[in-house]
Amino acid sequence: MSTNSESDRLRVVLVAPRNPLNIGAAARAMSNFGFFHLRVVNPYELAFREARSAVGAAPLLAKAEEFKTVAEAIQDCTLVVGTTAVGQRQLHHTVRRLDQASHPLHKHLAKSRVALLFGSEKRGLSNEDLSHCHWLVRIPTREEHRSMNLGQAVAVCLYELVRDPQAAAKPEKHVPATAADLERLTTLLLDALRSSCYLKSNPISKRRSAAPTEEKIRRLVRRLHLSASDAELTLGILRQILWKSRQDNELSH
Amino acid sequence: MSTNSESDRLRVVLVAPRNPLNIGAAARAMSNFGFFHLRVVNPYELAFREARSAVGAAPLLAKAEEFKTVAEAIQDCTLVVGTTAVGQRQLHHTVRRLDQASHPLHKHLAKSRVALLFGSEKRGLSNEDLSHCHWLVRIPTREEHRSMNLGQAVAVCLYELVRDPQAAAKPEKHVPATAADLERLTTLLLDALRSSCYLKSNPISKRRSAAPTEEKIRRLVRRLHLSASDAELTLGILRQILWKSRQDNELSH
Repeated sequence: MSTNSESDRLRVVLVAPRNPLNIGAAARAMSNFGFFHLRVVNPYELAFREARSAVGAAPLLAKAEEFKTVAEAIQDCTLVVGTTAVGQRQLHHTVRRLDQASHPLHKHLAKSRVALLFGSEKRGLSNEDLSHCHWLVRIPTREEHRSMNLGQAVAVCLYELVRDPQAAAKPEKHVPATAADLERLTTLLLDALRSSCYLKSNPISKRRSAAPTEEKIRRLVRRLHLSASDAELTLGILRQILWKSRQDNELSH
Repeated sequence: MSTNSESDRLRVVLVAPRNPLNIGAAARAMSNFGFFHLRVVNPYELAFREARSAVGAAPLLAKAEEFKTVAEAIQDCTLVVGTTAVGQRQLHHTVRRLDQASHPLHKHLAKSRVALLFGSEKRGLSNEDLSHCHWLVRIPTREEHRSMNLGQAVAVCLYELVRDPQAAAKPEKHVPATAADLERLTTLLLDALRSSCYLKSNPISKRRSAAPTEEKIRRLVRRLHLSASDAELTLGILRQILWKSRQDNELSH
C-alpha cells in the first residue's frame, strides 16, 4: 500500500489554465492513474468544474481546490517541481528529463507532499512561478515541436509515476521544510537584504528592478534543501537580525 | 540516427475515431514525440483534417492516410499491436503492460514497420480489430477507471517509445511476414477449412456463426510469427491444397 499513500501525497497544480476542457482532461488522467488531488491557480474560466472532458472524473474535478497564488497552492508541500517545454531560461534550475525525475519524485513522495506544477497553455510557467520550484522536469519532446497539450502533458507525467510499480522508494530520515516555511524565509531574507541595502528599498525603483533579484533569492532558498528544523532555526536567526537592525536604525535617528 | 529511422517505421492507426478533436490531439502528440505517419480507419466525421487541436501538427494531419478496413491500414506492417483498456476478453492474446512492451516494440521497429492500433472512444477495438493483432498493450490505469481519453492514450504510448534514448535495439536477422501476407494466408486457410468441411460453407448460416471461428483462425496465424519466406512457402502449400481439393470435387460430381 506504500504506492497508494505515495499517490495520495501528490498535488497536481495547474497554474492559470485557460481551457476548461484541458482541466477536465487533466482530471481524467489523474483519475486513470490514481492521483486525486487537483489544485488550480487563477483559472481563466471560473466554470471549469463542469468540463465534459473529465469523463469518469467528475467527483475529482468537483473537489479541486482553487487558489489565488502559486505560493498558497503549494504551501503544504515540501518539494515543488515545475514542468517545462523550453530549454533556455532553465539555466537557473536543475532540469531533469521525465524518466530521470521519476526516482527523486518517488523518493520524496514516500515521505511527504510534492506539488507538480503545469503552466498555462499559452506561456507555460512564468519566471515568477518557476522561482517557487526546487527543480524542473522536461518531457522529452522534439526540439522543433516542444509544446504539448496540457491534458496530454499531465497524462504523460502521471504515467511515468505509475509506470514501474517497483519504483516506489523507501522513506528517508530527512524531513524537509514546507513551501510555506521556505516562502516565509524568502520574505524575511528579502527584508533583511533591503534593510542592509543589498537590495534598494526605494519603493518607486523597486517595482521595476527588484523582481529578478527576488526570484534569484527565492531560488537560492529552494536550493538549500533545508530540513523542517533547519528552516525553523534559520527563520529565528533572520527574525533576530531584522529586529536588531530596526533597533539600531531607531537609535541612530 | 537509428532512433529516427525507428520512429519512421511506426504507423499510428486510429480505428473508427469519433471526435475530430481527439484525432487532432493524437496528431499533436505524434509530432511532439517525432512520429509522423498517421492512419485513420473509418472516421466518424470525415472533416477531421481541420481539427484545431492539432496545434503545430497541421501538416501531419493533412498527410494522414484514410482506409476503409483495418486489414488495408496495416497491410505493409509486420507487427500489429493493439491497445486495450479492458482485461477480460484479451485471454485470446498476450497482453503486455506498456513499459514491458517498449523493448519488443523497439526490437521490431529497428528492422520493420509496426502498426499501433487505437480503438474508438466509445468501445475501443472490436474483437474483429483485435484479431488482426499479434499482441496487445495495456496502459497501467486503475482498475476502477481504466478508459483513457484517446489523445492522452496516444501521447502516453508514444512517450514510452521515446522515453529512454538507449532503448533502440539492434536489428535481428528474422524478416517477418507483412500483415498483407498474413491476411492472404488467413483467407486461404479459411477457404481450405471450408472446403474440408471444418467450417460450414453454407452461406446462410455462415454470416451468423463463422465470425468467431474466423477471428480464432486469424489470431492463430498471427501467433505463428512467420518469416516473410515461410509465409510465402505456406501460401504456396495452401494454394496447392485448395487447387487439388477443387479438382477432386469436380471429378467426383
